[in-house]
Amino acid sequence: MSELTLTSLLLLFPLIFIVLTSAPPTIASEAATKGYSKSIPRFLGKFANPNRGKSFQYETRYFEQRLDHFSIADLPRFRQRYLISTRHWTGPDRMGPIFLYCGNEGDIEWFAANTGFVWDIAPRFGAMVLFPEHRYYGESMPYGSRDKAYANAASLSYLTAEQALADFAVLVTSLKRNLSAEGCPVVLFGGSYGGMLATWMRLKYPHIAIGALASSAPILQFEDIVPPETFYDIVSSSFKRESISCFDTIKKSWDVIISEGQKNDGLRQLTKAFRLCRDLKKTEDLSEWLDSAYSFLAMVNYPYPSDFLMPLPGHPIKEVCRKMDSCPEGTSVLERIFEGVSVYYNYTGKVECFQLDDDPHGMDGWNWQACTEMVMPMASSRESSMFPTYDYNYSSFQEGCWKDFSVKPRPTWITTEFGGHDFETTLKVFGSNIIFSNGLLDPWSGGSVLQNISETVVALVTEEGNALIILHSGQLATSVLC
Amino acid sequence: MSELTLTSLLLLFPLIFIVLTSAPPTIASEAATKGYSKSIPRFLGKFANPNRGKSFQYETRYFEQRLDHFSIADLPRFRQRYLISTRHWTGPDRMGPIFLYCGNEGDIEWFAANTGFVWDIAPRFGAMVLFPEHRYYGESMPYGSRDKAYANAASLSYLTAEQALADFAVLVTSLKRNLSAEGCPVVLFGGSYGGMLATWMRLKYPHIAIGALASSAPILQFEDIVPPETFYDIVSSSFKRESISCFDTIKKSWDVIISEGQKNDGLRQLTKAFRLCRDLKKTEDLSEWLDSAYSFLAMVNYPYPSDFLMPLPGHPIKEVCRKMDSCPEGTSVLERIFEGVSVYYNYTGKVECFQLDDDPHGMDGWNWQACTEMVMPMASSRESSMFPTYDYNYSSFQEGCWKDFSVKPRPTWITTEFGGHDFETTLKVFGSNIIFSNGLLDPWSGGSVLQNISETVVALVTEEGNALIILHSGQLATSVLC
Repeated sequence: MSELTLTSLLLLFPLIFIVLTSAPPTIASEAATKGYSKSIPRFLGKFANPNRGKSFQYETRYFEQRLDHFSIADLPRFRQRYLISTRHWTGPDRMGPIFLYCGNEGDIEWFAANTGFVWDIAPRFGAMVLFPEHRYYGESMPYGSRDKAYANAASLSYLTAEQALADFAVLVTSLKRNLSAEGCPVVLFGGSYGGMLATWMRLKYPHIAIGALASSAPILQFEDIVPPETFYDIVSSSFKRESISCFDTIKKSWDVIISEGQKNDGLRQLTKAFRLCRDLKKTEDLSEWLDSAYSFLAMVNYPYPSDFLMPLPGHPIKEVCRKMDSCPEGTSVLERIFEGVSVYYNYTGKVECFQLDDDPHGMDGWNWQACTEMVMPMASSRESSMFPTYDYNYSSFQEGCWKDFSVKPRPTWITTEFGGHDFETTLKVFGSNIIFSNGLLDPWSGGSVLQNISETVVALVTEEGNALIILHSGQLATSVLC
Repeated sequence: MSELTLTSLLLLFPLIFIVLTSAPPTIASEAATKGYSKSIPRFLGKFANPNRGKSFQYETRYFEQRLDHFSIADLPRFRQRYLISTRHWTGPDRMGPIFLYCGNEGDIEWFAANTGFVWDIAPRFGAMVLFPEHRYYGESMPYGSRDKAYANAASLSYLTAEQALADFAVLVTSLKRNLSAEGCPVVLFGGSYGGMLATWMRLKYPHIAIGALASSAPILQFEDIVPPETFYDIVSSSFKRESISCFDTIKKSWDVIISEGQKNDGLRQLTKAFRLCRDLKKTEDLSEWLDSAYSFLAMVNYPYPSDFLMPLPGHPIKEVCRKMDSCPEGTSVLERIFEGVSVYYNYTGKVECFQLDDDPHGMDGWNWQACTEMVMPMASSRESSMFPTYDYNYSSFQEGCWKDFSVKPRPTWITTEFGGHDFETTLKVFGSNIIFSNGLLDPWSGGSVLQNISETVVALVTEEGNALIILHSGQLATSVLC
């Protein structure tokens, strides 16, 4: 009944092509010095600016949540922040839908500000907009403060995807009850990790949410479901398709940096060459900084100027390669690299010196998640990769996690709890109303669902795009959310 | 692929009519003196004999489980017991299925001994048989011993349905991996609470189990989904349909017991009249004992002699009523009641005196579960009930739970986590491959699914039956497990 209402609304929805500016997933590879090189992938850039994005009208509210939904332990409750707008909601009598964005690993205000798509379509559907924050991020801190929540492995132990999904489920169920809106359909949205949460929530809580739009959600990037080289190979090919010489320059640069660093006064020379604010202590820090830039660039390689992670021109990789390639003959590899990477870190030209380490979002929670449940094997071991060679080494990954958090990863848990192996069969016979949207230029697309699974589990793929969503009225109305 | 194999096997399966002798759910109402009269329903009889049932060949093994699957907390692990038989299993190469009985609230050996159905059909399907024990029951005790596991609310707090399902999921995934049997389909079985677990596991872990047979599983007995009077009304009508005078005698008896108990020497007279081994301390204990007998009788009201909870004749309620009604005129109400109830408690005639309290299975865990997640409202407030009048009173239920366990119930959690309201719609659009089998004489049938939901979510209902399963080859092959 509620679904019919939504379908009717969808039928009115014209052909649109909308860019989901939210949460194109990014990665910051971890330096080898951290002990688990490239083993902790990041979705969200360390260097992203939380003040970027549009401002939308909403109220900020708080909801008291259990710390462990799945045990009866008498633990202190915490306040989950959520943003809500009922401005365009048609209400319970007209079965106004509830658009729930599954908050991911960061401040929920930032996701709200960068998910224009949800705000844009809400008036058309007469929808309530709801942005619940993910526990342990932003203001939604257990134990009263970030410091206490992040104190140790014991205090962090309730930072899991299942608990976050249960938070969303409990919140929206309570909210609907209070508003006598039990009949109003809930539609999930999410990008990157948030897209994974949206997919899993649709699968685990079908009685709560009637459908999900999962953008750039690498739900298959676990165990051996996709090769661990997938991510870096896609980043590399994004550079190679623009310019083979650019690809070669980057591929060569890692050894040059190491040998440069080994020279007398080498670290000081590198500091100077890359205009770093502080003295470089080891070459890995520089490599990591460069590695991050290339990965982020691949994720936000939009065909138009954008300002999500950094202010960037349209087709930024093309621009990076143009800069590298257009240096006069005789320009050194490292000079070319600096020219190229400046497109990412200094497109405005206003940066006087570069900070190698900066984390405005306080995203350490993701490292914890990656060291516990979200074990996504990463490697860069093929000739097709322009990155330094890394094999995926679970033992050293495990050691690193033990060192950092005194915790042992659970590498097979996510696939046990949510599925993964032969997942398309599961989705086919059991899933419905899920849209997987991906741009093939996005390096996370390799771990996502790229083919239609059934009439109601569909893949929207843009070959030349990043986290793009094409909403095709006919397709949506007739086959997705019926 | 794996499902095709199973379907092919099912096609060979002739028309059979099999009684699932396992786990016809029973109830022991709690005395008013416990503070939450009739509010904690029991599935399994306190008076059941664990040595009853057939013996089947299996191995007993143990598997190390996390105490909290959904947090990373560093808690002591525990050994889960499981029974396994690979005797008829055709193995991974032939995609031999795995029949997994979802262990419920008791010793797993008892369920194995009383689930002949699974053992009977295993050879026909070339199936492995697996009976994992539910945590906190039998030998599967966290913290090393029953005493420690049941020490207090903190130690009991991991006794939840979600954790039990995760135990099953982790165990069978690990087992399949070790046997290189990842492709072998898992089919779930379960009766009463075990049937609820089987249903929920099929919904929550569709990537792990391809189908479920849930016998007598009252998944709708939560909140206000079905009226709280349902259970006792069905018990009452089972008596009324046999004999109105029998129904009337029982209905009258509660007041007679109370007034008898208030007399001088009344408790001693009651002790004598009911041949109790020990002096009766309050009339509620006697009422509870009688209440249990009627409820259990309704659950095992099989048309043939049986020996599951107690040795009983066929149509035991008819026999109880025949005894009550055939007393000579002038026989008192309480004498008639004693004659009737002796059919249940003393059919063999060997019992010299009756113990009012006896718990050979150590089922206290169920009281904990009922006081935390499994909050199933129960009342006996209609004229159609032959039981003492009880309204469902959540406040007093909550107080009782606090008194007994220092715990606050979570009355809306099960429906949030597993669904319940408008559940048939969820099952229709999202579920598949679930058989709900019920006998309408079974008082738990009122909280179960009694109508076909879709081509693959079907109800097998026997109007004159209890926990009966009719497996109809055509129906199964063409519409259930395809």
